[in-house]
Amino acid sequence: MAESSEEVVEKLTGFGKDIYGKVDDLKSPTFSYPSKGLNNVFYEEESNLLKQGGKSSTRSFLNLSHSRKFMQTLMIGARCKDLLQESKTASIREMYYQLKRTLPGKKEENTFEDQTESDSCVEDLERMMDVLREQLHLNADKSGTLHGNVIVEDAGDTIDCSKQGMGGYAIPSNIERIDIKSVKADYALVIETSGMGDRLKEEKFDKKNNALLISCGGQPSRGARRLVHRLHRQFDLPIYVFTDGDPYGYYIYNVIKCGSINLAYLSERLATPDCKFIGMTMSDVDNYGLEKVTEKLKPQDEKRIKEELSYPWFNSEEWQRELKSMLKKKVRIEQQALAYKSLSFVADEYLPTKIDSRDFLP
Amino acid sequence: MAESSEEVVEKLTGFGKDIYGKVDDLKSPTFSYPSKGLNNVFYEEESNLLKQGGKSSTRSFLNLSHSRKFMQTLMIGARCKDLLQESKTASIREMYYQLKRTLPGKKEENTFEDQTESDSCVEDLERMMDVLREQLHLNADKSGTLHGNVIVEDAGDTIDCSKQGMGGYAIPSNIERIDIKSVKADYALVIETSGMGDRLKEEKFDKKNNALLISCGGQPSRGARRLVHRLHRQFDLPIYVFTDGDPYGYYIYNVIKCGSINLAYLSERLATPDCKFIGMTMSDVDNYGLEKVTEKLKPQDEKRIKEELSYPWFNSEEWQRELKSMLKKKVRIEQQALAYKSLSFVADEYLPTKIDSRDFLP
Repeated sequence: MAESSEEVVEKLTGFGKDIYGKVDDLKSPTFSYPSKGLNNVFYEEESNLLKQGGKSSTRSFLNLSHSRKFMQTLMIGARCKDLLQESKTASIREMYYQLKRTLPGKKEENTFEDQTESDSCVEDLERMMDVLREQLHLNADKSGTLHGNVIVEDAGDTIDCSKQGMGGYAIPSNIERIDIKSVKADYALVIETSGMGDRLKEEKFDKKNNALLISCGGQPSRGARRLVHRLHRQFDLPIYVFTDGDPYGYYIYNVIKCGSINLAYLSERLATPDCKFIGMTMSDVDNYGLEKVTEKLKPQDEKRIKEELSYPWFNSEEWQRELKSMLKKKVRIEQQALAYKSLSFVADEYLPTKIDSRDFLP
Repeated sequence: MAESSEEVVEKLTGFGKDIYGKVDDLKSPTFSYPSKGLNNVFYEEESNLLKQGGKSSTRSFLNLSHSRKFMQTLMIGARCKDLLQESKTASIREMYYQLKRTLPGKKEENTFEDQTESDSCVEDLERMMDVLREQLHLNADKSGTLHGNVIVEDAGDTIDCSKQGMGGYAIPSNIERIDIKSVKADYALVIETSGMGDRLKEEKFDKKNNALLISCGGQPSRGARRLVHRLHRQFDLPIYVFTDGDPYGYYIYNVIKCGSINLAYLSERLATPDCKFIGMTMSDVDNYGLEKVTEKLKPQDEKRIKEELSYPWFNSEEWQRELKSMLKKKVRIEQQALAYKSLSFVADEYLPTKIDSRDFLP
């Protein structure tokens, strides 16, 4: 279970006290944080997660090349503590604007020149404190929708996600603030495109199959990933991921399953290693006669596939076969290409057959 | 009021019968449709709308350069008629995949090579039939959320949009299928970024001001534009648009207000000429001391502003002054930059003051 707001405030206060202590002791104020970047990320086979390594970096106030970043990190930490104590949240863009000002006596120098500076300190703080930015009361943009038998409590409202029309429940940016009261479903289907989400909703796939439909509208937001994680962890709900049959769809699956390189330090909170991949695959093209509705691979697609072939998290026999088959056929296939068979084919045949026969990729 | 499904089916049937009639009379099968492109679009000052002109084009089956497009348009018209009669909808991508196949006896030639071909026929059909694609049961991707005192009926569910937590009601792609049962609000605020939408929801702006909050998450979807149009038309609801203070924000306002060049034939159904622009403006920068949180214009921003200066729909004294002031200051300002004052400034002061004093751009 995640830390309470009080515990996060305590962590931030401890961070500040530690700095003050060093000043009182006439020592150089410094702090350490886990290093970022690919060379501090590894794939842990047993957990099936991308994880942060053990390397750490130090920032020292008295080192001229550190002092700007040192000040920025402390400014953000202090403002996050205010947010927590005021029970407010801010977007990371608002945080940037909140703290942007001219340094006293320095006409041309600002605390932050652009948002990449503040965003990078936010990531450092997440790493240092080992909390989600949402626990620091910082939000990312929201996207994605949920349909199905879930009751959530969100900002004082009780929402029955099975009664949300075609629109659905809009997944909020900050999942830490919602309370999932009940889940009555056999599994959740995570869908790459909102077009396919609309199709399955129109076919009443959620009701007929007692399933949750989570439409991402492309790369899933942090909110959507965290929601999937919580649905699986708290309610033991099986998760099936349904993307386009192309290297970008496979990357989306991968991020949901193992985490991302950028946010490797959050994999244990954002990723869902037990999820399964339901499609689209190259065997679908053969099995369902979809050759006519494939699209030719572009050079950058082939390059991406070759990269994925070398990733340890695509190391399984099944994924190697899939990726090699794609390179050999030189085609990709979109999930909406199933409409070639008939509009309801995906809901009446494709998905139920795969789920019944447990025809998944790992 | 929009045509019923039966009336749209009748229009499509009439289109088909007309072609059959020509064949029976041994005449060349042809059909006419309003021409597309900038040279058939004009700005109508009295209605404040971008409109389609009177030029038309003809496609003739016996003209070799027309026959492919002729066949494609008929295929899509016929499939739309099926959709309407089956009470199904399809995304425009599904429509493409539904109809893609190899022409008999032509190993290398497909009915449609890519989706741009089918999308362009969909637009021709909308123009010819004078209906929305949603009335042809074709959907675009959904995006945007709604918060506030609105009750909608959507796919058999009755949804109270004032009780949707932080997430909100996800605006569906096809607004023709929802029934707006009641609206109890003083006005609707249409917001460019979802981050600002989250801010206003967190500040309970909707409840405190009896307002609807419509967050677009960037360029508003067709669904969001159509919803705004219907809220204004059916319920006489004032519409205030709140975007970044930059040429892209102003373009978003413009599309909501007057329509877009691309979809000029739909302006009367999608646009809301009575809406007002609430901000951000260059005077905000002076009035609220926001100089420190502006961003420098890039060359492409300046180019875009100069284009907008020449558009007749930005011809008013107020907009000319605004655009020229932006060129002179050489800066733009984002809506979330208001966080510089304080997180709640936008909700407690900025918006209420503007609305009370009716400080809008036309």
